[in-house]
Amino acid sequence: MKEKLSIVKIGGNVIEDQEALNAFLKHFSKLEGHKVLVHGGGKRATHIASRLGVESKMIDGRRITDADTLEVITMVYGGLVNKNIVAKLQALHVDAIGLTGADINSILSVKRPVKAIDYGFVGDVKKVNYKSINKLIKANFTPVFCAITHDKNGQLFNTNADTIASELAIGLSKLYTVELYYCFEKNGVLMSVDDDNSVIDYMDSGTYQVLKHDGVFHDGMLPKLENCYHAIEQGVSRVFIGNPTVISNKEQKFTTLFL
Amino acid sequence: MKEKLSIVKIGGNVIEDQEALNAFLKHFSKLEGHKVLVHGGGKRATHIASRLGVESKMIDGRRITDADTLEVITMVYGGLVNKNIVAKLQALHVDAIGLTGADINSILSVKRPVKAIDYGFVGDVKKVNYKSINKLIKANFTPVFCAITHDKNGQLFNTNADTIASELAIGLSKLYTVELYYCFEKNGVLMSVDDDNSVIDYMDSGTYQVLKHDGVFHDGMLPKLENCYHAIEQGVSRVFIGNPTVISNKEQKFTTLFL
Repeated sequence: MKEKLSIVKIGGNVIEDQEALNAFLKHFSKLEGHKVLVHGGGKRATHIASRLGVESKMIDGRRITDADTLEVITMVYGGLVNKNIVAKLQALHVDAIGLTGADINSILSVKRPVKAIDYGFVGDVKKVNYKSINKLIKANFTPVFCAITHDKNGQLFNTNADTIASELAIGLSKLYTVELYYCFEKNGVLMSVDDDNSVIDYMDSGTYQVLKHDGVFHDGMLPKLENCYHAIEQGVSRVFIGNPTVISNKEQKFTTLFL
Repeated sequence: MKEKLSIVKIGGNVIEDQEALNAFLKHFSKLEGHKVLVHGGGKRATHIASRLGVESKMIDGRRITDADTLEVITMVYGGLVNKNIVAKLQALHVDAIGLTGADINSILSVKRPVKAIDYGFVGDVKKVNYKSINKLIKANFTPVFCAITHDKNGQLFNTNADTIASELAIGLSKLYTVELYYCFEKNGVLMSVDDDNSVIDYMDSGTYQVLKHDGVFHDGMLPKLENCYHAIEQGVSRVFIGNPTVISNKEQKFTTLFL
């Protein structure tokens, strides 16, 4: 019987609001057993880029990461956001350790190939070094990953935090029974995007295919769900989607995805 | 018989020059046995602070760390500089892991008391958690520390990198025979500050006291040497002072300090 491991991904909205972040970290600190945190950086990077005179280029809502933008992301995600979360978790008696994918070569990526759009220094995850990460977990440290990976040739990459969370979950499911949490501003996956009370409680992959075919899910949710079912198909036990309190309070509404 | 551990501190001049940094990291990668790297951030932080419109306040050559400056330092030291060094070391087959003193609660500080000068968010090292750091070393990871510590109450501190290196050396000398390297732009400790060829080869603590009394050492070198002999008195085996090539090439000039 494998031990349980929880992997929790929080989005930009939680990180930008200090009060929301503190509340979330308190919930996270109470989550029992081995755990891993994954965070994005969101608008904080855009804000600091603009103060530095670095233009934030977006195409179809996706950031183009030129060399200057990568510097800002490395500063903001890898430094400012990550190290403040680590310090806050230490104050909550969680023995946190902040990581990029370059640290202990934990997440290896390849530069996204240039097709219609050149995304710049964006990495697509190729390999999760779950054995090295497990050395930290076995030492009772709590890894805190930001959305940066590397190519093992000295190049850092901006990488989607949802993908990092799901790839970590897939990798570590070889050693643990992994439960993956996606925390965001909604209470779960909605049947109707305008109705916050229309949370879907349980959804297996068959139901997902039908609802997807029926056009229930909007553009922002669709890649998230694809990510989740990809993880489930690759061995992740359960995926929970909901607001940040879901990790310690299972009495409220949230969505559970399974095979 | 204890195993050998090398702790290497590099200064701002090496970090600011990409070519010098790459050359140093190549030397560092060839250093055999367990090792730890400590780096400052130097003028890079001042430069980015000025681009962000954050004023760099200095009193007697020492930086005053207000809240905005601490943010810049966390971004630049903890993110930009640290993570790029980690990525470069990974390319050189060193399994590096970037840390602040908050990560795994490795270095605990107290805020420097306000006397004549209020240094702001500057930490004086109180405790090195050498047992936690040793878990990383035993896993064959190479810790890379930037000049940031914390108070275990969620507060990060700007902390002198020379002090971090010597306190790490003292802490880890309980488990290892520690050799401490201070790499900077000179070839060693000079008898005459204007003569680069006047490198002192060997200096025990008795000789140091005499030369110090005679006023041989200038203002910048004196606190460095005090740091070094403090470390030696607390159990560090040897301290080497010289240019960055000293760590892999002992045929050139450099200074060795011992008890």
